[in-house]
Amino acid sequence: MESFEDVRIRRPELESFVADLLEKAGARRDGAEATARAVVDASARAFDTHGVRLVPHYVESLVSGRVNGAPDLRFTRQAAAVGHLDADDGLGHLASYRAVEEGVAMARETGIAAVAVARSSHHGATGCYTLAAARQGFAAIGMTHSDAIVVPHDGLKPFNGTNPISFALPVAGEEPMLLDMATSSIPLNRVFLRRATGQPLPPEVAVDKDGAVTTDPHQATALMPLGGTAYGYKGAGLAAMVDILCSAFTGMAHGAALPAFTGTEESQPVSLGHFFIVLRPELFQPLALFDARVAAFLADLRSQPAKPGTRVMAPGDPERDAQADRRANGVPVDLTTWDSLREIAVRHGVAVPTTVPKA
Amino acid sequence: MESFEDVRIRRPELESFVADLLEKAGARRDGAEATARAVVDASARAFDTHGVRLVPHYVESLVSGRVNGAPDLRFTRQAAAVGHLDADDGLGHLASYRAVEEGVAMARETGIAAVAVARSSHHGATGCYTLAAARQGFAAIGMTHSDAIVVPHDGLKPFNGTNPISFALPVAGEEPMLLDMATSSIPLNRVFLRRATGQPLPPEVAVDKDGAVTTDPHQATALMPLGGTAYGYKGAGLAAMVDILCSAFTGMAHGAALPAFTGTEESQPVSLGHFFIVLRPELFQPLALFDARVAAFLADLRSQPAKPGTRVMAPGDPERDAQADRRANGVPVDLTTWDSLREIAVRHGVAVPTTVPKA
Repeated sequence: MESFEDVRIRRPELESFVADLLEKAGARRDGAEATARAVVDASARAFDTHGVRLVPHYVESLVSGRVNGAPDLRFTRQAAAVGHLDADDGLGHLASYRAVEEGVAMARETGIAAVAVARSSHHGATGCYTLAAARQGFAAIGMTHSDAIVVPHDGLKPFNGTNPISFALPVAGEEPMLLDMATSSIPLNRVFLRRATGQPLPPEVAVDKDGAVTTDPHQATALMPLGGTAYGYKGAGLAAMVDILCSAFTGMAHGAALPAFTGTEESQPVSLGHFFIVLRPELFQPLALFDARVAAFLADLRSQPAKPGTRVMAPGDPERDAQADRRANGVPVDLTTWDSLREIAVRHGVAVPTTVPKA
Repeated sequence: MESFEDVRIRRPELESFVADLLEKAGARRDGAEATARAVVDASARAFDTHGVRLVPHYVESLVSGRVNGAPDLRFTRQAAAVGHLDADDGLGHLASYRAVEEGVAMARETGIAAVAVARSSHHGATGCYTLAAARQGFAAIGMTHSDAIVVPHDGLKPFNGTNPISFALPVAGEEPMLLDMATSSIPLNRVFLRRATGQPLPPEVAVDKDGAVTTDPHQATALMPLGGTAYGYKGAGLAAMVDILCSAFTGMAHGAALPAFTGTEESQPVSLGHFFIVLRPELFQPLALFDARVAAFLADLRSQPAKPGTRVMAPGDPERDAQADRRANGVPVDLTTWDSLREIAVRHGVAVPTTVPKA
């Protein structure tokens, strides 16, 4: 999390505001609501890079015609435990919630199920969808590929997307455990943010236009895979797995063969793939034993001795304090995004919600 | 790969020699053959850390009674796409090949299937089993947990195992693509090897007994997760996913709650879990399109511009030259292991195979 100047808005007001804006930009109500749900969920969970700040980008994609506001989603159950969802170039959020819903329906009977999503678009934080499954008592693995912004191991030019892997796990008596990680060390917008703040980048996370490692955010044009110079073959290997599952298994081209998200004809669909695996715990183990095992794991992990000033945390734990704050005091929207949202609202005559007064 | 002094033995001779030794140590023929198949496969694929060098360790485990040489493997299909395999404390290799076989049988109908393996033991290289699926035209994801040798992010004491993730993918016209990676940067026996050679460890891969980062192999007692000090929460997050799938989903305890593999009562079973997911590509996409997508991905990746003196490779590519050499000139066994195997052979009256003369 980076800190930023913000306004705070209550979650329900923010969600319906965002949905209204997307509807005015051309999204059918179901897509507008799915996208609003996802981005506000990400912001409420302190996943700001993939939260409300993306709304102006989605508005542009709808207006330019890159994203189809009224998609005809077609789901085909191709085997007992496999489904294919053609997203018809619509909003990736609508398609991804639907994919997980279909995955849950299949896994309820079969124990595990996969849904391959084709002809989709940017879906924000992959964790939104695995979390949707976990909130219904199912574990889920989610992945998406994207256009090329990460160099391969030993490579000089971008080839992989940040190709995230998410894993969400239902935990009795608390919020699900959520892993949601790019297979690069940092996301690309960390580079943009550092350009604005003038801070150097950490070592071994980015390269310049010639593929040389750099900590200068103004020189950085692409990312390195998780593991850096020595072990980047591991991050790149995971990125390859994600890319294959999101392309060969969905019918889409691999990430580096997709049209670049920026710089190409803006009305051209991006034709992304996503891949979801849903698991029903009680078809693996009796639920009481499963819950006890998960609880024991988390209790043991969280009580491990830690470096001074830190504590050992489970995936998702670092954001918990911010989540409690955001539940109590509203979801933050950075001032640049807020100005942009208000401008869109004024243009379309959408009422702007009241911000929460600062304490 | 580290280089070492070795003898070379033809693969079939080495495999039957290893099987004979394991049988004499108390393994039933099926388990002896499965373990021999796995370790010789790993060595033939230049995965030496998980190859034939582990045989003396497996012999000890059989002799001490930690591993049951005559297990009664019990497979239960708990749902259309979910199976549970109780390995009865037998050799992990036998259980893992069986698990993948059952996963393939289910996924043939259902498209995707999971097999959770319980009451198992060390199975060597996880990639042996995902590869067995890929050689039959199925993709597979494999995982295993182990006892605590990797510190969690921000932690001081070992909690995770090296908890590997493997992904194998059938590729038309060539060997499957194989990712087989620990979620730590290095395996623990790299530390032992560096103690012997006196070379320092790379930065950010190991810690001393107090949890401080060290490059001194004599001080190193535990590993760091992939990502090092700054991004180790990613390696640790993947390790957590692996541990949960191998424990809560199999019925076993989590890695840190397992008996340590060394230092505890040697006759006590380790009660490990493994987790396999098998996918049938042609129930996702028409096989010709799938194969074309995979081929395009690999061709594009392998032709990417690379740093001087390197080339961009797909997972598994770095070992291909060594594999060709080993096919032509025999599988290498390091001299320490070779002495140990010959000693066991002499003790049990097993004929020692001829080594391949050096060119």
